[in-house]
Amino acid sequence: MKNINCYRRKIQYYETDRMNVVHHSNYIRWFEEARIDFFEKAGMPYDDIEKQGLMIPVLSADCSYIKAMRFGQVFRIETDMTFFNGVKFEFEYKVYNDDTDELCAKGRTSHCFVNSEFKAARINHSYPEFYSAFAEYNQKFKK
Amino acid sequence: MKNINCYRRKIQYYETDRMNVVHHSNYIRWFEEARIDFFEKAGMPYDDIEKQGLMIPVLSADCSYIKAMRFGQVFRIETDMTFFNGVKFEFEYKVYNDDTDELCAKGRTSHCFVNSEFKAARINHSYPEFYSAFAEYNQKFKK
Amino acid sequence: MKNINCYRRKIQYYETDRMNVVHHSNYIRWFEEARIDFFEKAGMPYDDIEKQGLMIPVLSADCSYIKAMRFGQVFRIETDMTFFNGVKFEFEYKVYNDDTDELCAKGRTSHCFVNSEFKAARINHSYPEFYSAFAEYNQKFKK
Amino acid sequence: MKNINCYRRKIQYYETDRMNVVHHSNYIRWFEEARIDFFEKAGMPYDDIEKQGLMIPVLSADCSYIKAMRFGQVFRIETDMTFFNGVKFEFEYKVYNDDTDELCAKGRTSHCFVNSEFKAARINHSYPEFYSAFAEYNQKFKK
Repeated sequence: MKNINCYRRKIQYYETDRMNVVHHSNYIRWFEEARIDFFEKAGMPYDDIEKQGLMIPVLSADCSYIKAMRFGQVFRIETDMTFFNGVKFEFEYKVYNDDTDELCAKGRTSHCFVNSEFKAARINHSYPEFYSAFAEYNQKFKK
Repeated sequence: MKNINCYRRKIQYYETDRMNVVHHSNYIRWFEEARIDFFEKAGMPYDDIEKQGLMIPVLSADCSYIKAMRFGQVFRIETDMTFFNGVKFEFEYKVYNDDTDELCAKGRTSHCFVNSEFKAARINHSYPEFYSAFAEYNQKFKK
Repeated sequence: MKNINCYRRKIQYYETDRMNVVHHSNYIRWFEEARIDFFEKAGMPYDDIEKQGLMIPVLSADCSYIKAMRFGQVFRIETDMTFFNGVKFEFEYKVYNDDTDELCAKGRTSHCFVNSEFKAARINHSYPEFYSAFAEYNQKFKK
Repeated sequence: MKNINCYRRKIQYYETDRMNVVHHSNYIRWFEEARIDFFEKAGMPYDDIEKQGLMIPVLSADCSYIKAMRFGQVFRIETDMTFFNGVKFEFEYKVYNDDTDELCAKGRTSHCFVNSEFKAARINHSYPEFYSAFAEYNQKFKK
């Protein structure tokens, strides 16, 4: 069974632009919201991760815009960890209009772990509890 | 000779995040700044395009983050139109630290033309002056 | 009894800046979120208001920053309509750390109604149902 | 003679909202841009200030919106330091449409100096070079 994380909220007025749709840059911010929500629900609140001296920069991000979203709508993001090897990991996001279930956008981000000097960190040794949580989560998706 | 457009400005304080680097979503906004600057220099100010009833939504966007940028730096974006067929077009962006000439990020966006009802518009008939400007610009790159 | 509206949510990573606190401009956006939540709970969803051809621009905004807020915290805004005369209205906002109940910021915004040509609109005649909802709400506060 | 600092740039597409005007929160960000430009022209680049371990949080901000600004316009901000006592200081901002010279908004921000633990810092002793620069600048305004 796939255990995909759901995150939903209303679209804000300040997220729209003069085309009367959500500005495309905000989807990248929504992916971050969904990712941080995922971390929290997986038992790894993101501010706890950073308190341990680990940071998780974004290596790449992409988004395909399928249907423009508007103020007054609720979006729902289904977030899925699609890769993890202890050094890097990847997420996939599907953005739905929560009322109509229409797929409105989809995208991906890739990440690594770095320490406070922005040097790549291998978490299996230094942060075994995060490694286990990630690996366990990723394991579920493989089945 | 390639006639690639250059756009540069200082990084704003409000573009940083608590990792002390530019938040990754802002590069997508910078691409838009560079693209609109490109349109203007190519003789098609973007607000003129919209006054004609044409809009140019983003169909997809991606960005690879190579080196984190910080407050106090100046970025330079080299923008290149890599595809144009009268209905769709694509841009490529390379983001440099303007002081060191280091490549810090690169990305692409793809676009189409739509009318005010968000229906796809073929501009060669309805907007021949934009079509000519785009085609002429794109032609330069092919040589 | 005062019927003050409460709005709460988590602070987003992209709302922080390199001082490791929420960038001060975001409180102005939070006021908008709280205001729109207020409209909805008062039975006047903001997108319905705009569908009627009414817009509600901001005439002024101010914020006093009392204690810096950070990623990982939940903010709660208590929103209060402090003036309404059918043409203009005012809101007050108090921003609390929802965990500690510390007052972290407070502010105000003032507004008017305009039609789609940005001309001031007096809503008691043209939009009696909005007028009643506002007046009724405001009445509660006077007692 | 008053030596008021001028800062100007084009309005970005992503700064607009679905009312087809600049979202009001962006003026608070523009004030920051103008303020940082002021610091730089006064010989105190803001990132140098922070490298010395000083930060300059915002204590309060306000803005009056006089005329809506739109995409395609250039704004000009005239920035004026109106108070400085070695611990706190204040700025005033006037936002003009640079083409028409119409005053479109005006606002103020107040600030203090803090060290890296967010404790108030008195700069006349610890940072005499900043103190002199500020005091000298402020002196000009008094005449």
